Amino acid sequence: MSDADDALVVFTPSGRRGRFPVGTPVLEAARALGVDIDSVCGGRGLCGRCQVDLCEGHFSKHGVASWATHLTAKSDAEQAWEKRRGPLRDGRRLSCSTQLLGDAVIDVPSSSQVHRQIVRKRAEVLDIELDPIVRLYYVEVQEPDMHVPASDLRRLKDALAYEWHLADLENDIRVVQQLQEALRRGGWGVTVAVYDDRRIIGVWPGFQSQVYGMAVDVGSTTIAAHLCNLQTGEVVASAGRMNPQIRFGEDLMSRVSYIMMNPGGDQAMTRSVRDALNELTLELATEANVHVDAILEATFVGNPIMQSLVFGINPVELGGAPFALATDEAIDGLWATEMDLVIHPNARVYGLPCIAGHVGADTAGMILSETPYLGEELMLLVDVGTNAEIVLGNRHRLLACSSPTGPAFEGAQISGGQRAAAGAIERVRIDPLTLEPRYKVIGCELWSDEPGFDDAVAPHGVTGICGSGIIEVIAEMYLAGIINQDGVVQGGLAARSERIVADGRTFSYVLHCNDSRTLAITQNDIRAIQLAKAALYAGIRLLMEQFGADHVDRIRLAGAFGAHIDVKYAMILGLIPDCDLEHVTSAGNAAGTGARIALLSRKARREIEEVVLRVEKVETATEPRFQDHFVGAMAIPHRHDPFPQLRTQVTLPAATEESSAASRGGRRRRRQGVSP
Amino acid sequence: MSDADDALVVFTPSGRRGRFPVGTPVLEAARALGVDIDSVCGGRGLCGRCQVDLCEGHFSKHGVASWATHLTAKSDAEQAWEKRRGPLRDGRRLSCSTQLLGDAVIDVPSSSQVHRQIVRKRAEVLDIELDPIVRLYYVEVQEPDMHVPASDLRRLKDALAYEWHLADLENDIRVVQQLQEALRRGGWGVTVAVYDDRRIIGVWPGFQSQVYGMAVDVGSTTIAAHLCNLQTGEVVASAGRMNPQIRFGEDLMSRVSYIMMNPGGDQAMTRSVRDALNELTLELATEANVHVDAILEATFVGNPIMQSLVFGINPVELGGAPFALATDEAIDGLWATEMDLVIHPNARVYGLPCIAGHVGADTAGMILSETPYLGEELMLLVDVGTNAEIVLGNRHRLLACSSPTGPAFEGAQISGGQRAAAGAIERVRIDPLTLEPRYKVIGCELWSDEPGFDDAVAPHGVTGICGSGIIEVIAEMYLAGIINQDGVVQGGLAARSERIVADGRTFSYVLHCNDSRTLAITQNDIRAIQLAKAALYAGIRLLMEQFGADHVDRIRLAGAFGAHIDVKYAMILGLIPDCDLEHVTSAGNAAGTGARIALLSRKARREIEEVVLRVEKVETATEPRFQDHFVGAMAIPHRHDPFPQLRTQVTLPAATEESSAASRGGRRRRRQGVSP
Repeated sequence: MSDADDALVVFTPSGRRGRFPVGTPVLEAARALGVDIDSVCGGRGLCGRCQVDLCEGHFSKHGVASWATHLTAKSDAEQAWEKRRGPLRDGRRLSCSTQLLGDAVIDVPSSSQVHRQIVRKRAEVLDIELDPIVRLYYVEVQEPDMHVPASDLRRLKDALAYEWHLADLENDIRVVQQLQEALRRGGWGVTVAVYDDRRIIGVWPGFQSQVYGMAVDVGSTTIAAHLCNLQTGEVVASAGRMNPQIRFGEDLMSRVSYIMMNPGGDQAMTRSVRDALNELTLELATEANVHVDAILEATFVGNPIMQSLVFGINPVELGGAPFALATDEAIDGLWATEMDLVIHPNARVYGLPCIAGHVGADTAGMILSETPYLGEELMLLVDVGTNAEIVLGNRHRLLACSSPTGPAFEGAQISGGQRAAAGAIERVRIDPLTLEPRYKVIGCELWSDEPGFDDAVAPHGVTGICGSGIIEVIAEMYLAGIINQDGVVQGGLAARSERIVADGRTFSYVLHCNDSRTLAITQNDIRAIQLAKAALYAGIRLLMEQFGADHVDRIRLAGAFGAHIDVKYAMILGLIPDCDLEHVTSAGNAAGTGARIALLSRKARREIEEVVLRVEKVETATEPRFQDHFVGAMAIPHRHDPFPQLRTQVTLPAATEESSAASRGGRRRRRQGVSP
Repeated sequence: MSDADDALVVFTPSGRRGRFPVGTPVLEAARALGVDIDSVCGGRGLCGRCQVDLCEGHFSKHGVASWATHLTAKSDAEQAWEKRRGPLRDGRRLSCSTQLLGDAVIDVPSSSQVHRQIVRKRAEVLDIELDPIVRLYYVEVQEPDMHVPASDLRRLKDALAYEWHLADLENDIRVVQQLQEALRRGGWGVTVAVYDDRRIIGVWPGFQSQVYGMAVDVGSTTIAAHLCNLQTGEVVASAGRMNPQIRFGEDLMSRVSYIMMNPGGDQAMTRSVRDALNELTLELATEANVHVDAILEATFVGNPIMQSLVFGINPVELGGAPFALATDEAIDGLWATEMDLVIHPNARVYGLPCIAGHVGADTAGMILSETPYLGEELMLLVDVGTNAEIVLGNRHRLLACSSPTGPAFEGAQISGGQRAAAGAIERVRIDPLTLEPRYKVIGCELWSDEPGFDDAVAPHGVTGICGSGIIEVIAEMYLAGIINQDGVVQGGLAARSERIVADGRTFSYVLHCNDSRTLAITQNDIRAIQLAKAALYAGIRLLMEQFGADHVDRIRLAGAFGAHIDVKYAMILGLIPDCDLEHVTSAGNAAGTGARIALLSRKARREIEEVVLRVEKVETATEPRFQDHFVGAMAIPHRHDPFPQLRTQVTLPAATEESSAASRGGRRRRRQGVSP
């Protein structure tokens, strides 16, 4: 197929093919055909990003006989690279330093593509196309000449235009400040970081191959951060720590109220969270052995109040109606120096957009991570915290609201409640005949009725019950008939089991008791969970009603709570609507994943900025139908909703007559502002 | 001409005319016709910028009878404005609050125009169209509504788009940080500052009418700054002070050499000049009674080394060949915070572009101020300092160079030399018959031969001779025959006058002598001035030669030296080429004027950025012809050039035979690098 002067080359997997003169570098042929092969060094054999595999054999499909002899022998550049970085694997070549001698089939591995897919390691595969906003380019710049008094910067820009077709670049002043030394130390070869194809934000002497970004999820309780290699998309380090703002107030409203009482309190909280971010940054950099100056990007998600404080915005308006956000736009292109971050001073910061006063950038991150806006199926996303953020929709329409569940699901307001830590009961089963419980505690693999349990838990003891434990115990109490549909502990059972004990005018269920501690589920505990779950369910039903849907196709539970609860129990208790249990799954830290996606993909940023504008915000506090949904949802699992899919897997007790005490007396909580 | 429902309105001086329904506000009619009337408050009667004059009478030219009754009576808004700001002058109205009742001729005074011409108070009138990059807009923003969860920022932008047609505005993060409080304190009315029609950089509660900018000329010896009202173009305060970098080195090269010897010396100098800038800023703000937060813009000019240090760029590369600039682009849109300036933190800074390693932003400022690029006449611009910056050209072509004159013109290297301060001789005349001198000193109006002179100068004495004095005394010595064309003091005259005294193997001329001080002009002094003037003249001739010109039409001398010397003596001595003396004038602080023009006009910035790209840089240090011109220019006024126009006004001594000692022995100085 080849003649004397031409070689036919076929690139896979793209299938692009063309004829080139013998002697053409493989990278050049790929570029000419529009085949996506990465390169930072511009074909100088320095970066090793342009690796390709020669496919040997007769390829009748392509009509090509492709042999090792059809490429030049290993070049000096390749040998030098192998000396520095280790041997290339068999058949692999640096395409910049390898020339065509005859016909060849060349495979471009995905690791050599600029716009490669990053497959996340999760059951639900989600493809992100790596397209970071910061990219590195190596260039060699002409030396200065007294007769052509173009400045160093102008010659750098000329080189970038010539070698990389980056025209009309702007630059940060710090690049000018560092440029002359970098050029001279690098022997006129420098690596520059270009932001969004339009602005030079960093310069280093010589060849520099790595640039990093941070994705940060600022929660009211914890801050989680990932350090990512922007060239590969890989997470190189992860870390988390408590949000130090907790000393100003445990929950959001108490922090806003602190600010109202203490002028300058917002600035103190901003400083404290930024200090924590800087400590986290140093921890990540140390763990990954990366210099902080190599971190050129950071993305942030958080609820509206956390997001405000991170960006130095006083969140006081979010403490009371009408809950006006300062901005609902993405924070785009902010300098790291403006936030006192210890990363590269020219690093840019991106904050995902908030959606409404109670639906924040964390929800935007969850939407970006779960992409309900792409599919036909009706997806329900729930992130449970002190408020629950709820998103419902599909590619045609998206609705969102925040519902005031209160902190009961996190163990607060529960008599024996505690954070999910060693010693906390997290799983519970109750024998419907004997009413005897068995349980598991965090930090121990054994159930409480298994041999050796007492010894195993001795180090930390049984200290309380966490969010997932409280869900399970109340659901099991319902399944065992200890409470009825209205959540009332059946005092009559006290005769049958000493676990049912009187507690004033109501009854409690003793879950755990030893010499040191009695852990009982009180009627008040059950009421607190009923109020929380009714608020959550009412919010969901309100969105379903507005959408015109009577069921959802898929439920994704985000956050720590979603990761730990058994979704079956959540459904038995009526936290979430009826759904095929196979389609009810944890979304992990979806908000943080959203921040990571925004870090790695410019397209994703534009996508979420556009999607949030289409989200219809539903205000539970002023929507009269919310109250009706709330009342019905006080019952377990619900006063009227039949949960047909759940009933195919679980036998629910028969419904009792409506008890006015339970369903009408339920204290209706509205989201409350804070007053100083 | 009018019918019942319509009124014909004619605006002068534009002549635009149109019919509008009776009741139309005058401002609205003007806007509809594209008549340029300013307004900050958006027609609310707050800012008073939209004032117009009603012209009363029959205007046959326009076909209009225009009477006071054809406008509505003084409105409540106008009366309220007068109460606050004083009465409007007769016939003057706020066009936003005045409606048309019948035909009218309305004059728009230039002070009410947005794009008005600013006429500088100078002999040569130069028109600048006021078009500052920062403008104020007052808007009223919708209050937040829980059912429409658009953020405060979004509603602000909506209001700006609706009221001022400012679409797709970006914003600084600090605007978001301050917005909520400003809106609430201002009762949902705020004034915003918009940069370049595209980015909100400031927000204030309520109505704010004034915004200011600073134009700064950073010289190696002095820093001069003007504070300007950006709405009117007016200079509201001016101040100057010594450049504190002097403690690191008197001249530029000694400062660069300090940096080479002292790591971090560049940062110390940057801090010191910025500290001085901040002191100057506070002085200007106090003098004009302006809050520093109302200063939203600053522009800078300086020679390449000063400009580098102001912007935090190490100038060490400018200390030696090839004199590579870090950047020759304008520094555009830099944040004030990045320079630690005490003006509004979101204020933007603009640095005019440098042209080459020795031709700086001060030269760009001079070009912008003098606009040689606009006319047909061939203009020569000279700014004399330690180096002389020379620009030659017209609208077809511009050339520039820097010539190493050394500091002799500033009194350095001169035995009795001193700065231009009280006690310095600044004017000299020598009687050609007696060879007796008379002179004037700075700080005294009398000549030395006038009665009372001795008493008048007693307080400070006669302390030395400044730049203009040394030019005059040497020129007068030449005219009186005390020195010949080659600058040699004629020892033979010692017999005729005791003013001629032997000084080793050469002779000196005693200019001043009393009990305390003898001030003589030595042969070395004359040599130093000859070297300096030869370098200047050679640079000029080199440019003329490259341009293909044998004469220039106009000469403008910039800077303090240009302001003080008598141009006739400068020409007799051969500092500058022959020209009609009427066309040789001082340009004042042309560089500073350029900074002020750039402050007030966006168009001027684009203009100078474009013009500097067309400037052809000539490198005197490597141009062989420079040496030839230099040798010829050692003679007074010149070995060959005949100076015909000068000779029409001054009788020059006949030329002597060429003296090889003077013309060949002249030590040729090249610009020298500094080595550590």
